[in-house]
Amino acid sequence: MSKFNIAICQMNVTDSKRKNLENARKMVCEAVKEKKADIIVLPEMFNCPYDTKVMSEYAEEYDGETSQVLAALAKELDVYIIGGSIPEKSENKLYNTSLIFDNEGAIIGRHRKVHLFDVDIENGIRFKESDVLCPGNEVTVVETKYCKIGVAICFDIRFPELMRSMVLSGAEIIVVPGAFNMITGPAHWDALIKVRAIDNQVYFIAASPARNEKANYIAYGHSAIVNPWGEFIAWAEEREQIICSEIDLKYIEKVRNELPLLKNRRESVYSINS
Amino acid sequence: MSKFNIAICQMNVTDSKRKNLENARKMVCEAVKEKKADIIVLPEMFNCPYDTKVMSEYAEEYDGETSQVLAALAKELDVYIIGGSIPEKSENKLYNTSLIFDNEGAIIGRHRKVHLFDVDIENGIRFKESDVLCPGNEVTVVETKYCKIGVAICFDIRFPELMRSMVLSGAEIIVVPGAFNMITGPAHWDALIKVRAIDNQVYFIAASPARNEKANYIAYGHSAIVNPWGEFIAWAEEREQIICSEIDLKYIEKVRNELPLLKNRRESVYSINS
Repeated sequence: MSKFNIAICQMNVTDSKRKNLENARKMVCEAVKEKKADIIVLPEMFNCPYDTKVMSEYAEEYDGETSQVLAALAKELDVYIIGGSIPEKSENKLYNTSLIFDNEGAIIGRHRKVHLFDVDIENGIRFKESDVLCPGNEVTVVETKYCKIGVAICFDIRFPELMRSMVLSGAEIIVVPGAFNMITGPAHWDALIKVRAIDNQVYFIAASPARNEKANYIAYGHSAIVNPWGEFIAWAEEREQIICSEIDLKYIEKVRNELPLLKNRRESVYSINS
Repeated sequence: MSKFNIAICQMNVTDSKRKNLENARKMVCEAVKEKKADIIVLPEMFNCPYDTKVMSEYAEEYDGETSQVLAALAKELDVYIIGGSIPEKSENKLYNTSLIFDNEGAIIGRHRKVHLFDVDIENGIRFKESDVLCPGNEVTVVETKYCKIGVAICFDIRFPELMRSMVLSGAEIIVVPGAFNMITGPAHWDALIKVRAIDNQVYFIAASPARNEKANYIAYGHSAIVNPWGEFIAWAEEREQIICSEIDLKYIEKVRNELPLLKNRRESVYSINS
């Protein structure tokens, strides 16, 4: 099973949780039936507007309604689902959390966003997740029947140490649901995705919501799948759409042999502890 | 002194060390006189063909002829010179070494390439520096009158841990003399330069030799200077040329305040020791 398909559902996220869940279900079904996807990735905050003011109102416990919908869907379709992220409520705290389901509907991993998005760019964007969210404290790598997959969320992508830590734990694919915006998206999104794939010699899966010009926070879109050589092998525009690509684990091995980056790391000169 | 100019001399490197040194002198003088450069960067292996078979024949002790030429030049012109790299001979070992001179001609730092370039790409390129070279074991950050500058060489750029280590030691500029080739250059060069600048919120200075189609190893060219937001503010084509750009240390501070990456690193989740 060295070849399989990963799809990204670049959903249009609305103010209605019910509609978002229905849409997620519809798009996941389509990804499986039309694109033959084995693993499906949803975007960051796919059940909720990306707005700190409303996150608590949409928040659920980790085994709440959204989780149940995704678990049932994964089991029904016999696929893995990496459930983008949702606002998770736990002991009166809120997290930006990705739940990962195997093909029997079991939760096999949970990533809580480690780096909260607190920025204040002149004439650009101001956003402060830490006003309402708490950060996670774990590097997340899940074991699947295909390979190990690292999962992080949006701003986490900006920290090469975190990406590298996943790969040192065996990840051959990194999945990052993320909603960059109209300032940071054009400036940084494509380049970050590409270089994380190149540095770590992994398939890199970056899943954005569709661009919704009416939202308070306008997501950039442009979800993409990049191979371990840094080539974009599937990419979306701004609008709602599904993209899908074949993953070939043997190609990871080939790239890692030809350009041996990981084995030429110099642990005696620097080391990452995680 | 928050503003000053850095130039890259994208030299055409020949088989003649004498000609290479003359050319380096001529281009450094031009960078200072025509472009008002305060710091001048030369490319990797600027005095010697990039060919493991001949490196020992061109090699010098660290205070050899090449060093003396650059030291005199730095003093004469009252500028800093980051001397690309040369094959350095020391106790019967060879290194790929960058020597860094202050404006009085003193050597203020020496970086020996930490990651040797050993690759074997199908239908692409085969190169094995470790056949003749030994690796360095140090992260190199030098103190100048402007700011701290990190220096690494070519393949070192591929290791985000090394780049980060420099910045954690205070580097606000990273200089990488590097000779990517006609396979890895088009595939990775621009993206790596851009993302190292974005991740570390530094000015990134990447200095290639000019492309010489007659050489055994054909360098990619395309030297560039990228600002801390990831914008290319000076760039070369393939041919021999000088590029120069103003560096503004206050802009680094602005970017680091607006998008606070370095201070949002999660040392409790991962840490880099160097």
